[in-house]
Amino acid sequence: MEIGVEDQHQQRFGLVEGLQEIPPERWQIPGFRASGVHAGLKRRRRDVALIVSEEPAIAVGTFTTNQVQAAPVRWTRRRIEVGLPVRAIVCNSGNANACNGPQGEQDAAAMAAATAAALGISPDEVLVASTGVIGLPLDMGRLLPAIGAAAAALESGPDGWSAAVEGIMTTDTRPKMAAVECAIQGRTVHVAGIAKGSGMIHPNMATMLAFVVSDGQAERAVLQDLWRQVVGETFNQISVDGDTSTNDMALLLAGGRSGVRLDAGDPELKRFAAALHTVARSLARQIASDGEGATHLVEVEVTRASSDAAARQIARSIARSNLVKAAVFGQDANWGRILCAAGYAGVPFDPEKVNIWIGPVQVCQNGRSLPFDEAAASAALAQPEVHLAVDLAAGNGTGVAWGCDLTYDYVKINANYRT
Amino acid sequence: MEIGVEDQHQQRFGLVEGLQEIPPERWQIPGFRASGVHAGLKRRRRDVALIVSEEPAIAVGTFTTNQVQAAPVRWTRRRIEVGLPVRAIVCNSGNANACNGPQGEQDAAAMAAATAAALGISPDEVLVASTGVIGLPLDMGRLLPAIGAAAAALESGPDGWSAAVEGIMTTDTRPKMAAVECAIQGRTVHVAGIAKGSGMIHPNMATMLAFVVSDGQAERAVLQDLWRQVVGETFNQISVDGDTSTNDMALLLAGGRSGVRLDAGDPELKRFAAALHTVARSLARQIASDGEGATHLVEVEVTRASSDAAARQIARSIARSNLVKAAVFGQDANWGRILCAAGYAGVPFDPEKVNIWIGPVQVCQNGRSLPFDEAAASAALAQPEVHLAVDLAAGNGTGVAWGCDLTYDYVKINANYRT
Repeated sequence: MEIGVEDQHQQRFGLVEGLQEIPPERWQIPGFRASGVHAGLKRRRRDVALIVSEEPAIAVGTFTTNQVQAAPVRWTRRRIEVGLPVRAIVCNSGNANACNGPQGEQDAAAMAAATAAALGISPDEVLVASTGVIGLPLDMGRLLPAIGAAAAALESGPDGWSAAVEGIMTTDTRPKMAAVECAIQGRTVHVAGIAKGSGMIHPNMATMLAFVVSDGQAERAVLQDLWRQVVGETFNQISVDGDTSTNDMALLLAGGRSGVRLDAGDPELKRFAAALHTVARSLARQIASDGEGATHLVEVEVTRASSDAAARQIARSIARSNLVKAAVFGQDANWGRILCAAGYAGVPFDPEKVNIWIGPVQVCQNGRSLPFDEAAASAALAQPEVHLAVDLAAGNGTGVAWGCDLTYDYVKINANYRT
Repeated sequence: MEIGVEDQHQQRFGLVEGLQEIPPERWQIPGFRASGVHAGLKRRRRDVALIVSEEPAIAVGTFTTNQVQAAPVRWTRRRIEVGLPVRAIVCNSGNANACNGPQGEQDAAAMAAATAAALGISPDEVLVASTGVIGLPLDMGRLLPAIGAAAAALESGPDGWSAAVEGIMTTDTRPKMAAVECAIQGRTVHVAGIAKGSGMIHPNMATMLAFVVSDGQAERAVLQDLWRQVVGETFNQISVDGDTSTNDMALLLAGGRSGVRLDAGDPELKRFAAALHTVARSLARQIASDGEGATHLVEVEVTRASSDAAARQIARSIARSNLVKAAVFGQDANWGRILCAAGYAGVPFDPEKVNIWIGPVQVCQNGRSLPFDEAAASAALAQPEVHLAVDLAAGNGTGVAWGCDLTYDYVKINANYRT
């Protein structure tokens, strides 16, 4: 797990240095317990995860923009919209429970009911998520008893969280976890999150699940604004393959055990925002770098755009380009493809002012070729993390997006996903 | 070369049966000559093409929407906008002459000037196109003499056209040609076109060049409308990888040697439109089926959408999806990915009304799984042409898009394009 603390990021959140990373083996988030068990929806690994808040938590979330929304997305979105406190998140992997008609809706409700029964709470206090193959009915005969087992296995320590993160993985090769603690109002506040990728990942919530919890708290409206902004700059800026899934959600549960409760306008809100942003950004980067078949994380930074939104849009377009991704895989400093992908992002700019860097090597100046050290550029493309920078010389907007390279293994994995 | 004459197409242009395909070995388009030579921009194959109209021709065109436009695109767009008659198209492959700054503009102008000098016409009567790698200066020392050689090699027969089509190819594995003749106003009118793909192919003119000529003629405004509509339903409906290039154009030169000249409202215009549409559609399908690394042409047909535009947009989204493309490569009847890609096309529809077919096999009914014959669906995915049909049950809109599968070879080709 890495929590990137680059210069730009530090600059943005001047107070980021106040954050302490919590390594996974020390996770203990006051007021929360977690577990993961094996129901048999996947062959071997855990496929059910449960996260429980001991207090009624304020919950906010963002969801897939796909017209096709899986039953659990609809269930959870409704609960989030109503705005009542939440006690648990239950999630299965191995089956998306999408495109299953009324049966799917019933099954999502039954997952909530089983969780509620096991915990002695109301089904309306349970958020439901699913991920996996589309269009196959859930095997409730396996899933419902497993939910009971998950409730019995809840733990407040690191083992519970590592079991939970395994329970939400599909083709992920690595668990994705990030946690920090920081001082707010003189107390210690924790923020911790788990996430899964790794195909069908694209802005606006691709097959991506992220569950973030905190013992800090803020008014619901404040939390919702904060989360929307954080998600816009992190999870919505990653692309593995441009496919936006039917099942995505990024949920935040604020339990409040720390005793810290922030109102709108509180000067300490910035510290809480920085903690959330740091965790979400780390998870987003972990998802991108573990994209299906990926061998490199690609970070695209766009500066001096006409606005932050324009910068983010251009960064996404570059991170998404199959041709850029294939060039990274081939360690080919083909910067024309970077400029080209910027050009079709749908944002006007003057190509004759554009500067491009691959790692530390400037490869394009004022929209034109520059004699550059091909070996140095190739070496920058050989790093596990490839940094592409595009300067538009048009304004003050900045934006970052993350993607990965396009490899033989991406094709292999996705040509034979079901079989 | 195939000119698809499916039922739907016939229905649309009731008169399509009046069209006669002209096989490449019989091409002879009255009033036009063509040639192709080897300048040395590519290693072995011809890399310069020249098409000449013996009469001043009416020229219309559509161009890339990329913010970054190569110098030849700018040159040619200006000439088309001014609307004066055109005598020639000169095109090189192996170098896109994009992102080369003022030198690029000078080189595009010099290509026109050299062509004009060799033919005894004005540079403003010459349209210029380039395709290949971005950001490297053109080798004018090789290119200019080759243009003279191309002018000397012009032929009115099939050999000229087959040399020309080779001259515009990059990673294409097959030449793309389509021609028809039909009776209009009691005379024979010919329409013939050559095109190149094959990577960076996406709606709105990806790295795609298409040059179509006819000895029929219509008022310029009529021709421009007709062409825009034809391109919208054909070349703009193909996607190889979602990357829209800096260099694309689809040009139509109407010479008039047939003596046929159509005004707005002429009842025979429909026949001419059908001929143009048939040629453009055939070229578009040939480009899609020869996408980089492709082993299948994928035809996506969307019916009963809220409008034709909505149907086309959804069809494009499906044809573009990496996950759908990889599933076709793997012959995996994973229809959830088709529905998912429809869902993020940006067009509202009711997922619970959607029906999906893979070839003749219905795999989804009312947005849900259907027991279906997996072997039959797999067999349909094994055909060289894979047909995916999506019925939205929402209106009368229809649309077709074409793409190809995503293969190991796509990655291989694009990881090492420059080296």
